[in-house]
Amino acid sequence: MISEKLVQQMNFINEIEKLKIVYRQNGVVGGARQENSAEHSWHIAIMAFTLQEYAEKDIDILRVIKMLLIHDLVEIYAGDVFLYDDAGRNKIKTQEKKAADKLFGLLPANQSREFTALWNEYEQAATKEAKYALVLDNLQPILNHYYTRNQNIKGKKIKKSQVINKKRCIKEYSEELWAFTLETIEKSVAIGLFEDD
Amino acid sequence: MISEKLVQQMNFINEIEKLKIVYRQNGVVGGARQENSAEHSWHIAIMAFTLQEYAEKDIDILRVIKMLLIHDLVEIYAGDVFLYDDAGRNKIKTQEKKAADKLFGLLPANQSREFTALWNEYEQAATKEAKYALVLDNLQPILNHYYTRNQNIKGKKIKKSQVINKKRCIKEYSEELWAFTLETIEKSVAIGLFEDD
Repeated sequence: MISEKLVQQMNFINEIEKLKIVYRQNGVVGGARQENSAEHSWHIAIMAFTLQEYAEKDIDILRVIKMLLIHDLVEIYAGDVFLYDDAGRNKIKTQEKKAADKLFGLLPANQSREFTALWNEYEQAATKEAKYALVLDNLQPILNHYYTRNQNIKGKKIKKSQVINKKRCIKEYSEELWAFTLETIEKSVAIGLFEDD
Repeated sequence: MISEKLVQQMNFINEIEKLKIVYRQNGVVGGARQENSAEHSWHIAIMAFTLQEYAEKDIDILRVIKMLLIHDLVEIYAGDVFLYDDAGRNKIKTQEKKAADKLFGLLPANQSREFTALWNEYEQAATKEAKYALVLDNLQPILNHYYTRNQNIKGKKIKKSQVINKKRCIKEYSEELWAFTLETIEKSVAIGLFEDD
């Protein structure tokens, strides 16, 4: 009565439990622990439809949300690399590709192809859906650091100019989202989360 | 340059940070802490499109996913009540309604109405989208308890018959999903997570 296909789907669903213990540089309210990539993905998926009016008119929001929900799954095997660690981020690419093959390979063939294509689309950041997804993924940590008064990021001694440089995809995407982002960066500098140049 | 509307949307996005510190009875891999409602919501949103073929053919999967991503937000103010605590669950309804008004009231009026409608739809479990969402919300803890060998649930001394009774919405929905659920319940009883009757 239980098909091989359902077993494969459930193996995948069980395996992704592990994203809940991949911790990031973001904080949580109260500061008791760092944020993990599962709850980060949840947050940006809600942001996708809350901020949809700042995206292009004819965007496929379902594909954006699917992409955001699965884009960090490769971290289960490859780990999370800090945005400002450029050397580490270049090195991780091959491991992430292997991780995608292993993880999406748990699924039935048609879904394995579909999920891999979504992940590749996000990574390549070429379609309008992937571009909007990338903007949300970059915006959320800025909001998170300031709102949670993330003491972890303070210890990293990141300069304001580095943040602005890393977040330029937001600037190129939406004037209004960028204005809010920049204001939040300034407020974060004012309370010492980032260093003034 | 920053509209009042964007400020409202960002206030909402910041406020929902708090769902990450609403802890549930589910566990995480390794057992270091309990699962929170943000990562739970992420998990069931992925389940929605991974298991879509077991839902009705013409289901609006975007609405299912939106519903799942926001359905637990009221817990930010009202808290999470354990599924098997019937008295507690009846009492909480008024508080959850107030929580929805407060939280979705942060948003611009049109979005406040849209999010409230989605939350009400989930709560009433009358549409085909809400019924499928409810099935996923009920299935995930069964998978989670067994996969994480959740020692927390063991302490609750829940009987197998209670679990089967609480999960009958899955049985009524899909023969195949129910077969898998029942098998997982049996395996959970075998390792002592639930008590045999």
